Amino acid sequence: MTTAKDTQRMMHINLFIMGCGHHKAAWRHPNSMVEQLGDIAYYERLAQIAERGKLDAVFFADGASVGNVSDGSPWFMEPLTAIAAMSRATEKIGFISTVSSTFYTPFHAARLVASLDHISKGRIGWNVVTSMFDEEARNHGYQAMPAHSERYRRAEEFVQTVLGLWDSWQDDALEFDRQGHYANPAKVQPINHEGEFFLVDGPLNIPRPVQGHPVLFQAGSSEQGRTLAAKCAEAIYAVAYDLPAAQGYYADIKQRVKTAGRSAPVPIMPGLVTYVAATEEEAQAKQRELDELLPVAASLRQLSVFTEQDCMSWTLDEPVPELPPLAEFKGPQGRYSTILRIIETEQPTVRQLLGRLAAGGGHCTMVGTPEQIADKMENWFRNGGADGFNLMPPSLPYGIEDFVEQVIPELQRRGLFRTEYTGNTLREHLGLARPQHP
Amino acid sequence: MTTAKDTQRMMHINLFIMGCGHHKAAWRHPNSMVEQLGDIAYYERLAQIAERGKLDAVFFADGASVGNVSDGSPWFMEPLTAIAAMSRATEKIGFISTVSSTFYTPFHAARLVASLDHISKGRIGWNVVTSMFDEEARNHGYQAMPAHSERYRRAEEFVQTVLGLWDSWQDDALEFDRQGHYANPAKVQPINHEGEFFLVDGPLNIPRPVQGHPVLFQAGSSEQGRTLAAKCAEAIYAVAYDLPAAQGYYADIKQRVKTAGRSAPVPIMPGLVTYVAATEEEAQAKQRELDELLPVAASLRQLSVFTEQDCMSWTLDEPVPELPPLAEFKGPQGRYSTILRIIETEQPTVRQLLGRLAAGGGHCTMVGTPEQIADKMENWFRNGGADGFNLMPPSLPYGIEDFVEQVIPELQRRGLFRTEYTGNTLREHLGLARPQHP
Repeated sequence: MTTAKDTQRMMHINLFIMGCGHHKAAWRHPNSMVEQLGDIAYYERLAQIAERGKLDAVFFADGASVGNVSDGSPWFMEPLTAIAAMSRATEKIGFISTVSSTFYTPFHAARLVASLDHISKGRIGWNVVTSMFDEEARNHGYQAMPAHSERYRRAEEFVQTVLGLWDSWQDDALEFDRQGHYANPAKVQPINHEGEFFLVDGPLNIPRPVQGHPVLFQAGSSEQGRTLAAKCAEAIYAVAYDLPAAQGYYADIKQRVKTAGRSAPVPIMPGLVTYVAATEEEAQAKQRELDELLPVAASLRQLSVFTEQDCMSWTLDEPVPELPPLAEFKGPQGRYSTILRIIETEQPTVRQLLGRLAAGGGHCTMVGTPEQIADKMENWFRNGGADGFNLMPPSLPYGIEDFVEQVIPELQRRGLFRTEYTGNTLREHLGLARPQHP
Repeated sequence: MTTAKDTQRMMHINLFIMGCGHHKAAWRHPNSMVEQLGDIAYYERLAQIAERGKLDAVFFADGASVGNVSDGSPWFMEPLTAIAAMSRATEKIGFISTVSSTFYTPFHAARLVASLDHISKGRIGWNVVTSMFDEEARNHGYQAMPAHSERYRRAEEFVQTVLGLWDSWQDDALEFDRQGHYANPAKVQPINHEGEFFLVDGPLNIPRPVQGHPVLFQAGSSEQGRTLAAKCAEAIYAVAYDLPAAQGYYADIKQRVKTAGRSAPVPIMPGLVTYVAATEEEAQAKQRELDELLPVAASLRQLSVFTEQDCMSWTLDEPVPELPPLAEFKGPQGRYSTILRIIETEQPTVRQLLGRLAAGGGHCTMVGTPEQIADKMENWFRNGGADGFNLMPPSLPYGIEDFVEQVIPELQRRGLFRTEYTGNTLREHLGLARPQHP
């Protein structure tokens, strides 16, 4: 029997893990667990908190360079190895690892992710990225990052090769016939791929993943990124500053998926930074507490670079001085337009602007009571802005504990979020069909 | 106070994991756990049994192709991801993963292995191999396997690059200064490597491993392999059919290490296949039971290839017919000389020969009571043949359970093996100093 309740559309919510949290100064807080970033128990605990909240998955970004040691965010554990351990400390929640198509070989990527899917019994997703920074390229044999278009051509061939390798074993290849063979040789076949970037004979040396294919996440915002997403992404991590921006991206991607002839739901999950507390004032105080931990000189120096202004003499607790319009700006447009947008819509003080840029940047930030945040999330969810969210807690584990204890129950009361897992795999959590063997 | 007991030289013993065991037919046994090879709990259980026996480490071979599905050994889990989980199911035992210097980039290898060293709190070793088979090469972009000498040049540069990346963070780089930086930028430095094969700027994006360097294993037997081992291996997995062969290899490597100016102990651990039971007859029965599971036609066909004879009409339970001497043999010498050696020293029936080739091949096999096996191991250990052994149980988990329950107590009674772990890291188990930061 199907009731209205059974078929109600539900949000999908991931915990996006990042060191001590997505606020760059979070590790500076006296209570931060920066000393524990080398202890896998810390990551296991984060996954357990997220699972207590019945979240869909834990999401790992990744990069192939260390970044700014002197005033950047701290390091974090390598995602693939961390996820193997985290999956054993949990039972239901999914895990999404970023793996770069520019630096791995498709065979390694296919095998590592497939192995995690077996270890976790079907709870793995793969966030395909093409990577961005020359420092990363120069750790993997390139003099500089290959051009954007080349990276995307490579990514497309990479994804197709990985999917082919996952399908190189049929689902019923394992026969365990003790008088014959452990696997039916007719059901384990090479792929003999030879393309512009890769030569891969296959078959893979691990049976087809539990989910058929681990769930393919993508986060493209460029034209080529959106095209790739429309063609193969099964779920999308998006960047949207506010509801209109989210609606624009959402409509565009859903249209492209349709145009590509696909009927999959492709849930779109924008990044979301939240500060939640019993009262709005307390929530704002939490935000202010982190913002005040920012190293002032370094932050103003960075803001000077972003804005091409001398910001060093700006007064922290006064409104941001007027900036030239986008059209007059000569530097990188993306970050500058975000800055103008924040100033226009939030009228922040200089310190608040620094804080916003230090926590999620161009992502949406919601500050308030559980009801206020649930209202806003519901608004995005019901009005074509999102199918769910990739939570970017400004501080960890505190930000995700707050969310799980305060916002999740409110979303559950509204019938917008599961009160118990109804499936065992990440695909089931996300409402995605298991891909048939071709 | 140092007593004779404190300074007594002790064996080092690893469990070398391989699917359902090192006997190719082990998976065909009615009790085999071939259905569980996709269940990480199976691997965790193997590690727990080995830890109950106070073994130094679990050792994983690896390859980048699926091998013979129709009559080969079954698949196994990808080692790096499996070890992350297995290390969380144990407390003291080490884990050694094979990682190929031909297919990985040094940055990925350094980071994945370093991450495991953090996850396991210092219990990781890396077995460097250069890989061998064209099928593996053709899964990673090569038309065929690069020449042996090129692979070893690459391996040497690879190892030096990985060591450099592990040292790119000083031990005390992490300062957690909440008013300053989480790591001291002066103590996190690039390596700016640009060699024949690799361009890697560094620094690595993970702090120096718990052990400084995870322990470097190697298994070279060729001239180039031995040279590389003498230069950088910290422990060695060897292949030795009998004590004279082991002694020859042992003396050669120890001499080369000395010549290279190194004072490290470099424990040498030959592979060892054991069949153990309360009586010699029962032990032989265990061996026969596995040998009888071999598919006869396929095994004889393979033997025909190895010997360049028509073996299809040979009678299974009669002695092996006489074979031409090595000098007259035109095919690959290594395997053929092993076959001649087995025939000469063991006078096997055809079935016994097939069984020996199907379980460990050129490795030493010991069959008997716990006392008999301990006698032989002690003989190797006391007479310049071995510093310990890499156990290759013909069937798993049974072969390692037998060994841990029956042989380990006998070795402990003789004062040849630890009764409790005295350290927490793999380096400590192996008696290897932690490498200073250069």
